[in-house]
Amino acid sequence: MGFIMIGERINGMFKDIGEAVAKFDPKPIQDWAIKQTEKGAHYLDVNVGPTAEDRVKSMRWMCEVIQEVCDTPLCLDSTNYDAIEAGLEVCKKPALINSCPAERPKIERVFPMAKKYGAGIVALTMDKSGIPKSADMRVAFAMELVAAADEFGLSPEDLFIDPLILPCNVAQDHAPEVLETLRQIKNLSDPPPRTTLGLSNVSQNTLDRPLINRIYCVMAIVAGLDSAIMDVDDDALVDAIATADMLLNRAIYCDSYAKVFRQR
Amino acid sequence: MGFIMIGERINGMFKDIGEAVAKFDPKPIQDWAIKQTEKGAHYLDVNVGPTAEDRVKSMRWMCEVIQEVCDTPLCLDSTNYDAIEAGLEVCKKPALINSCPAERPKIERVFPMAKKYGAGIVALTMDKSGIPKSADMRVAFAMELVAAADEFGLSPEDLFIDPLILPCNVAQDHAPEVLETLRQIKNLSDPPPRTTLGLSNVSQNTLDRPLINRIYCVMAIVAGLDSAIMDVDDDALVDAIATADMLLNRAIYCDSYAKVFRQR
Repeated sequence: MGFIMIGERINGMFKDIGEAVAKFDPKPIQDWAIKQTEKGAHYLDVNVGPTAEDRVKSMRWMCEVIQEVCDTPLCLDSTNYDAIEAGLEVCKKPALINSCPAERPKIERVFPMAKKYGAGIVALTMDKSGIPKSADMRVAFAMELVAAADEFGLSPEDLFIDPLILPCNVAQDHAPEVLETLRQIKNLSDPPPRTTLGLSNVSQNTLDRPLINRIYCVMAIVAGLDSAIMDVDDDALVDAIATADMLLNRAIYCDSYAKVFRQR
Repeated sequence: MGFIMIGERINGMFKDIGEAVAKFDPKPIQDWAIKQTEKGAHYLDVNVGPTAEDRVKSMRWMCEVIQEVCDTPLCLDSTNYDAIEAGLEVCKKPALINSCPAERPKIERVFPMAKKYGAGIVALTMDKSGIPKSADMRVAFAMELVAAADEFGLSPEDLFIDPLILPCNVAQDHAPEVLETLRQIKNLSDPPPRTTLGLSNVSQNTLDRPLINRIYCVMAIVAGLDSAIMDVDDDALVDAIATADMLLNRAIYCDSYAKVFRQR
């Protein structure tokens, strides 16, 4: 289906969403659900944010109010797996679980839950010891995750492996390692796992964030990136992705190819 | 040294340059030589254009008047090898010869000339039968060119192999083949040959040429592109290249990395 865009905006870390979650005010959340859907998002990330008092209750409520205004699938984003399960219970379409590291017992909690609800998993190439620098170590974690998918009756394609990009101004040497990781992940299994990135991380605290986001996204697509958690309201970014898709011959060129891309 | 930008603008196909060549008026040529150098060009392409009466005389004169105003190395662009040799005779710095296909007797004319004048060669992955579609056939031509370099006492690094990108609106399936060709060329020899592209070709007759140029350039850099014959006056294109260079960890991040890139 071409590149999968996961809209990042419904996250309590943003002030308007954080306040909406605190007050159980659906309007800002629903507005962003509609806007991101109109901009072409294939999934909407849903994160209650750091200040929510009851993450289980907040996640379920957010999923409910979003689904009142659109039927875009959801990507449930929390470190609290009870909150994720509360969301999965009310999701009308197959969702994504965001996220699971390559670490027991988290795998044992998340992978069976994904199987039960028909959900995909954003699976991270890290464990308790943190994010490794080298592509080789990241790929080793990816291999564990693919093996775990098999163990729990999931397809490699149910995994969206995230090799975890860090800000280029503090961990610049990670950027090419993540590209190499993406290349290798695509050779891990047949069918290969899918891949994703929390794209906006690459540009944290840099001067021209949109430029760095869109150039790195294009570079990652060439290396094997299938999707990103991203700012779908950044038109230049979506244009860049649409252009890369077309130049890889995955969508036929026409003068309005970027518009067609958003309407898939 | 990072990505090599070859300024495309001093070409008789452009109206102002064509007229300047016809009248032997140095001003427009010198203006573009200075402007492209200021924009960060590492080489200036020099093409007398299709209307020049005496290509040998015009090429020599163009090289002379450009070198009156800047010392940027030249990329002598002609299918007339006597014109190229006339340019090489007056070049003060090692030049590039643009271009030579994988075809005898052209190789026998160009490669010894490159050796004699210490010039590099833009070497095309094609022969009399034209441009092949598949990466494999393009790479086969690249192998012939690398073998010819060895035969005539040149290093693989003296070659700038050009896998020949075609307009995406008429030959879209070539675009990913060219990326694959770039990847394979980089594994042909140690040291590998260098690579280049006539970048603006990819967007001929499309609606948003600068967008397609810069996205394809970034994609090609990830695949192994070392240089391009390009519009160095396109600031967004140069910013994209500078950003890709930084994200490949080839230049250290600082807030002014794009400015630093232009001043290398």
